Amino acid sequence: MINLYLCLSLNKNLTKTVPKMAEKITKRATDYSQWYLDIVKIADLAEHSDVKGCMIIKPYGYAIWEKMKEELDRRFKETGHSNAYFPLFIPKSYLSKEASHVEGFAKECAVVTHYRLKVDENGGGIVVDPDAKLAEELIVRPTSETIIWSSYKKWIQSYRDLPILINQWANVVRWEMRTRLFLRTAEFLWQEGHTAHATKKEAIEETERMLDVYAEFAEKHMAMPVVKGIKSENERFAGADETYCIEAMMQDGKALQAGTSHFLGQNFAKAFEVKFADKEGKQDYVWATSWGVSTRLMGALIMTHSDDLGLVLPPKLAPIHVAVVPIFNNDDQLNQIREKTAALISELRAKGLSVKFDDDDQKRPGWKFAEYEAKGVPVRIAVGMRDLENNQVEVARRDTQEKKTYALAGLTDTISALLDDIQKNLFDKAIQMRDAFIKKVDSYDEFKKRVEQEGGFFLVHWDGTKETEEKIKTDTKATIRCIPLNAPEENGACMVTGKPSKRRVLIAKAY
Amino acid sequence: MINLYLCLSLNKNLTKTVPKMAEKITKRATDYSQWYLDIVKIADLAEHSDVKGCMIIKPYGYAIWEKMKEELDRRFKETGHSNAYFPLFIPKSYLSKEASHVEGFAKECAVVTHYRLKVDENGGGIVVDPDAKLAEELIVRPTSETIIWSSYKKWIQSYRDLPILINQWANVVRWEMRTRLFLRTAEFLWQEGHTAHATKKEAIEETERMLDVYAEFAEKHMAMPVVKGIKSENERFAGADETYCIEAMMQDGKALQAGTSHFLGQNFAKAFEVKFADKEGKQDYVWATSWGVSTRLMGALIMTHSDDLGLVLPPKLAPIHVAVVPIFNNDDQLNQIREKTAALISELRAKGLSVKFDDDDQKRPGWKFAEYEAKGVPVRIAVGMRDLENNQVEVARRDTQEKKTYALAGLTDTISALLDDIQKNLFDKAIQMRDAFIKKVDSYDEFKKRVEQEGGFFLVHWDGTKETEEKIKTDTKATIRCIPLNAPEENGACMVTGKPSKRRVLIAKAY
Repeated sequence: MINLYLCLSLNKNLTKTVPKMAEKITKRATDYSQWYLDIVKIADLAEHSDVKGCMIIKPYGYAIWEKMKEELDRRFKETGHSNAYFPLFIPKSYLSKEASHVEGFAKECAVVTHYRLKVDENGGGIVVDPDAKLAEELIVRPTSETIIWSSYKKWIQSYRDLPILINQWANVVRWEMRTRLFLRTAEFLWQEGHTAHATKKEAIEETERMLDVYAEFAEKHMAMPVVKGIKSENERFAGADETYCIEAMMQDGKALQAGTSHFLGQNFAKAFEVKFADKEGKQDYVWATSWGVSTRLMGALIMTHSDDLGLVLPPKLAPIHVAVVPIFNNDDQLNQIREKTAALISELRAKGLSVKFDDDDQKRPGWKFAEYEAKGVPVRIAVGMRDLENNQVEVARRDTQEKKTYALAGLTDTISALLDDIQKNLFDKAIQMRDAFIKKVDSYDEFKKRVEQEGGFFLVHWDGTKETEEKIKTDTKATIRCIPLNAPEENGACMVTGKPSKRRVLIAKAY
Repeated sequence: MINLYLCLSLNKNLTKTVPKMAEKITKRATDYSQWYLDIVKIADLAEHSDVKGCMIIKPYGYAIWEKMKEELDRRFKETGHSNAYFPLFIPKSYLSKEASHVEGFAKECAVVTHYRLKVDENGGGIVVDPDAKLAEELIVRPTSETIIWSSYKKWIQSYRDLPILINQWANVVRWEMRTRLFLRTAEFLWQEGHTAHATKKEAIEETERMLDVYAEFAEKHMAMPVVKGIKSENERFAGADETYCIEAMMQDGKALQAGTSHFLGQNFAKAFEVKFADKEGKQDYVWATSWGVSTRLMGALIMTHSDDLGLVLPPKLAPIHVAVVPIFNNDDQLNQIREKTAALISELRAKGLSVKFDDDDQKRPGWKFAEYEAKGVPVRIAVGMRDLENNQVEVARRDTQEKKTYALAGLTDTISALLDDIQKNLFDKAIQMRDAFIKKVDSYDEFKKRVEQEGGFFLVHWDGTKETEEKIKTDTKATIRCIPLNAPEENGACMVTGKPSKRRVLIAKAY
């Protein structure tokens, strides 16, 4: 066990709330679930609120989410989308309009039934005013297809109104009994794209384009390799003709669905009677897609890279890139270090990097080191008086924990290159880890044993039936994560039933 | 009346949903309220949704809101704040903890009573599952003081944990029966800052600092002059010791509260038992502030600058700065214009300006002109074949509707300067308008007549009592907007009661 004394503040705003006592992180090998919660806590990312199932995203966690948002938003706009905002509430009857959608979403949701409170005449405090009952209950959106398509109906008359390429950043609520910070919460933050097209081909292209946007973001920014694929019918979004997904592999061998992009066919257009006139004046239903990623990505990020010392962040999503820790005994020494490092810091900032010079004299350097390690700051620079004499500093990288002494001259470029290298190294390590978790298995007995013992992704033959899928889930808790887009054709026999199969699917236990 | 044929699309994403038929804008002089709604509609900013009181912010409107957010967020971070996210739901009992807060906010709010729907066994479709009744009702946040202070209680033990400087971008719901797009809606978007401090002095400084941030943003970005002041006790935020505000004047002589910053004293700390130990170990309650602006600013922006031709936007908040309209009869001409203007457009973009080259061949130039006017695009450039021969273009500014011919050479700097000039001109015009609306009045009879006939801000003496304030409101519907921060001491007599007064207050009818 590592004891980290976290009496220090990384930054007035980001970490005022870091616990002030000794804290420890459970080792991954000991209890992976507890390790995850420890990391969320020690890095001060989020916590449970007093409202069951709802989390508080704390400033340092939110700063990472903001970085994700910013990059995703840039990519959405680059691919032609605009943001808009639709109501939080959905009339109950709207949910029912698309038959399979209501199946999937009407179950666990927050229902608004009244619009007023009042003071109880019998002294019972504040009570719901029975006179303020809504004629039709409102559902707090679990996803916005229905309310958005009821608007698109008014917006679309002809092919000239198409495509509509809209995204929304919003909070959604899906009542959950068993919650886990970021990974499964009743309220979460997400983006949901909702597009409308004149042709099936165009809608499918859009679905695939956004899957690619997600995959590129995951790999280039989160440094998290993903498998792109298509969901089985069972795992499809309620109301979709086809659900595309990206699946990532966590360090404990469990898969995590990191994003989905749905080809909705004409289902919502039919449910909401949205037709358009084509160039020849012929009426047809509009084709739709929707796609989303959520604060769940925070959980994926944590579980992909972090270690027993704390959070590990890819530089592209780190709120602080470089922490400079001066080692000093008095103000004079601190000032000398400050002066000597000023040029480096301003050069790094000029490159768009976020640098924290930690001159807090209430905390010892060792404490600060542990704090920055716990928070996943990619690069830490330590500078003492002897370093000053030698015009050098000690540079530690968070990913490998390597320390090296560098001359101050030319350090800006070195640090910049080091950050690139850390980004690359995290991705390479994650690929290695993920690939080591992928195995081809043909025997159901072997699968059952190994999925339990080793975890990971299993490439297996499946007969394509719901029954077999259900059996596998019942027997092992593993689910078909996807039919990988790049899966080669390969004749085989279903590992459960022996029936013929044309390609392997990816199966795993999942978050 | 001006008929604008809006069959054109400004931009695939921003305006696919522009109404396709002839539209007209009611003149301000005829019906200011209707004019406002016409502007919101014709500029495609927002519309009512099927959910009573909830609006849809359309892409072009949302793009303006994003610009506001971006600048405000930058200013919040520059003044040391971090963003975080707290739950949408507040347990009913929390609202009651601060006595005057519950008075102000418990009345009209959305109440979640159940967490599940089910299929009615009697074929009644989807119904609320009576078995899924919450033990304690949840309120959709009308503002987040209570849920946030219940967290701060856990985060604050000592002076070292202070200050906490947190902001949240969120949606809130206050049930409203009479709604008006942007100005008053049941659900709206806003930011709410919530800070915690060790001393009263520091908290008051923070309250004033954020008022200054709002005022600077309003004046420098929205080009909207504001009066900074303090609310009377009657108009104070429920739970505050003091409410600071910025008040703007609309073209119809009605005031609009554009932002508020509250000094909350120790009220919420006491309600939620949040104490801290100071350096000497002495326990005291924490001091608090909260401050917010909302999508209401969109209404203020529209009503400050727009005219009978449509929306007028200050360049700093315009999603499109320059629209280039080629005038062509065939593809060859279009290509020549495109080539000739390419350098200008890329130079403007390199300056961070958003430029739209509108090559749509389905719409006539006149239609495009009207469209860009309606949408408030600050600068429009028209280029025909004769212009090309003369190496010139026609430049029209939206604010004054002046048109001028310029040589293409050196045009980038001209446009850039023109945008600065438009920004400045809009502010100057708004100041003139606002100042013309300010008048000192000493007789109540004169006040009653003029507030009805002329509108505007009235600087009057008031005896400081609630009774007089209520009387003025009952008699005239005007309210005390604020006691201006810069109001000089001036002995006078209350215009209603004749009792002594030390300074004038600002009274107006308001949105």
